[in-house]
Amino acid sequence: MKMVEKKQSPERERKEWQAPRRAKRKWSEFARRLLLEWKRLELPMEQERVVVAVSGGADSVALLMAVDELLKDRRLALEMTVAHLNHGLRGEAGREDARWVEGLADSLKVEVVLGQARVKERAIRTSDNLEQAARGARYEFLAKVAEERVARVVLTGHTMDDQAETVLLRLVRGSGAEGLSGMEAVRALTTSSDILLARPLLSWARRAETEKYCREREVEFRADAMNEDERFARVRVRRSLLPLMKSFNPRVVESLSRMAELLREDGVVLKMAAAELLELASEEEKAGSRSRSDASASVKGSLSVNILAGAPVAVRRRALRLWITEGRGSLRRLELVHLLGVEKLLAGERGGRIAELPGGSFVERKRGRLYLHVK
Amino acid sequence: MKMVEKKQSPERERKEWQAPRRAKRKWSEFARRLLLEWKRLELPMEQERVVVAVSGGADSVALLMAVDELLKDRRLALEMTVAHLNHGLRGEAGREDARWVEGLADSLKVEVVLGQARVKERAIRTSDNLEQAARGARYEFLAKVAEERVARVVLTGHTMDDQAETVLLRLVRGSGAEGLSGMEAVRALTTSSDILLARPLLSWARRAETEKYCREREVEFRADAMNEDERFARVRVRRSLLPLMKSFNPRVVESLSRMAELLREDGVVLKMAAAELLELASEEEKAGSRSRSDASASVKGSLSVNILAGAPVAVRRRALRLWITEGRGSLRRLELVHLLGVEKLLAGERGGRIAELPGGSFVERKRGRLYLHVK
Repeated sequence: MKMVEKKQSPERERKEWQAPRRAKRKWSEFARRLLLEWKRLELPMEQERVVVAVSGGADSVALLMAVDELLKDRRLALEMTVAHLNHGLRGEAGREDARWVEGLADSLKVEVVLGQARVKERAIRTSDNLEQAARGARYEFLAKVAEERVARVVLTGHTMDDQAETVLLRLVRGSGAEGLSGMEAVRALTTSSDILLARPLLSWARRAETEKYCREREVEFRADAMNEDERFARVRVRRSLLPLMKSFNPRVVESLSRMAELLREDGVVLKMAAAELLELASEEEKAGSRSRSDASASVKGSLSVNILAGAPVAVRRRALRLWITEGRGSLRRLELVHLLGVEKLLAGERGGRIAELPGGSFVERKRGRLYLHVK
Repeated sequence: MKMVEKKQSPERERKEWQAPRRAKRKWSEFARRLLLEWKRLELPMEQERVVVAVSGGADSVALLMAVDELLKDRRLALEMTVAHLNHGLRGEAGREDARWVEGLADSLKVEVVLGQARVKERAIRTSDNLEQAARGARYEFLAKVAEERVARVVLTGHTMDDQAETVLLRLVRGSGAEGLSGMEAVRALTTSSDILLARPLLSWARRAETEKYCREREVEFRADAMNEDERFARVRVRRSLLPLMKSFNPRVVESLSRMAELLREDGVVLKMAAAELLELASEEEKAGSRSRSDASASVKGSLSVNILAGAPVAVRRRALRLWITEGRGSLRRLELVHLLGVEKLLAGERGGRIAELPGGSFVERKRGRLYLHVK
């Protein structure tokens, strides 16, 4: 990934000559709501740098403009870096977007980092689809920018509409509670980093509001041709499925967003219960004797069959998934059917002794315990 | 509700002259799968009477024919009563359906009970919509038939397609996990009865399969004009929303049904946790002193603010809903906004001292406890 960096330190300069106290001028409703959510999410208020991901679309431009408004009004005292990745999927249009974002950041006197990815090549290499590869490249780029600029938080402009689309996409693809609980407003940017990904528009801002705020601020935004391409399921959700659902309930986007939040809250409890069950089911291990084969490096701990069999299925299935994920180091390609296979082992001889997992790993039942063999 | 009863005891007669052992003839795949599910749901296999609700549509006719097949093959040894309610919404067509169901039952030599409701009048009386009033009248009728015929189980022909439609209806209307978990395969028929409502087609049978089985058995079925009326949201879900969702995933009905099942399993755990929390939060009451006003009949117990405040929100909200439902005797018109109001009381003085509930009841915070005042 090529990174073109461009630095300025406009914040510092301005601080020297501007009035130290908060400006009294009327501020926008959009920025006011952003600040409310900012506090609710306990995002940093001062003495830090944040990275704002800006594609050039209305959502991310509105986020940038509103953070800038809060900074200039001294309601936040942060340093800001704008990060933009050209996915390399749209030729000249992509390069134009990059130049446009650079120009916008310049006009705001905000530092900007431009990145260049080769998403098509990445998709071939990782066997992901284009959307997945683009997201992977984007998050990698944002993590790199955040690390280099020593920022603890990366902000993206996902709105409530994005949330509703995500929930519906997962619904049509067939998902349990985790999928339907949609995006979190704050989470780790990547599995291995301390950097947070925060979406401070997610729980309140509609797409139409970001466009309206851009117009209020008299700033243009870019239309992404990928957002019009009906080959992408997300675009069809936005252009066909959501409008049809609105004919049943005009506030369906808000409803889906609230449903996702309720399911996320349910998930917190169920995850806690699963972690407790996993601890309980692991415990007995110390008491049991380990045979030679159990002690090999490929065997990642064991669980008590009896304790698992006595647990409610919703907790047990989450515990098994957590156990397998930790053992394999990834959830990749693990599906419900694999978990059902592992659960069958709990039925004793009738359920077999081995349950296969994707990629050659397997779970073995032996002397009242499940053993995870990782390939 | 008028009930026209018609009795026969064909089962008994037949037993006298038919071979006592199970017939060896090839049985249908549909009946085989019904029997599998019958056993999974632990429905009665012998020495009981069951009531089968038959509208005349393909689903309920297939259910009736398949139960009849299992009875005649001696795979089940039950008595059966067919129950049909004319909702009084479709004039002559409704009367024709009733006569048709009666004729079908006669041809199978099965007892039939016909009922007559006045759903429009009921809807006006109860301020329900027509769909709700029709369902209310139907379940009341089925409960009455089951009581009179001493049946412990009432069977309905709901299919996996009905489940998917129910889930989507609740989704578009904005629902939490409970709503999205759809219909249960077995539940109490009414809140106050021991009679079970069982839906033995729900988790496996598609609507197309019930029609196919009817054709195999060379039995007609009735088309319900209400199933074509686009004024009903359910009809629009069936005819517009589901087909569009199938363009994303051809197996979306199965996916929605599986999702509902996963959410139901989650619900079991969360309900248990809520009941435990409620018990814990109620406990301290005995230790505290009750003032005169607390002791009045309108105050339905109290809960510890501290214990509630320390619980995860998903469990707390379910516990509060359970508490209020038990105190008021009904969940009627209780919405998320009311629960949020009660939760605010937990924040202490800032959250106020009173939270209103629908219909004049309210929750009061006093000396570290919540009191439910029922009007």
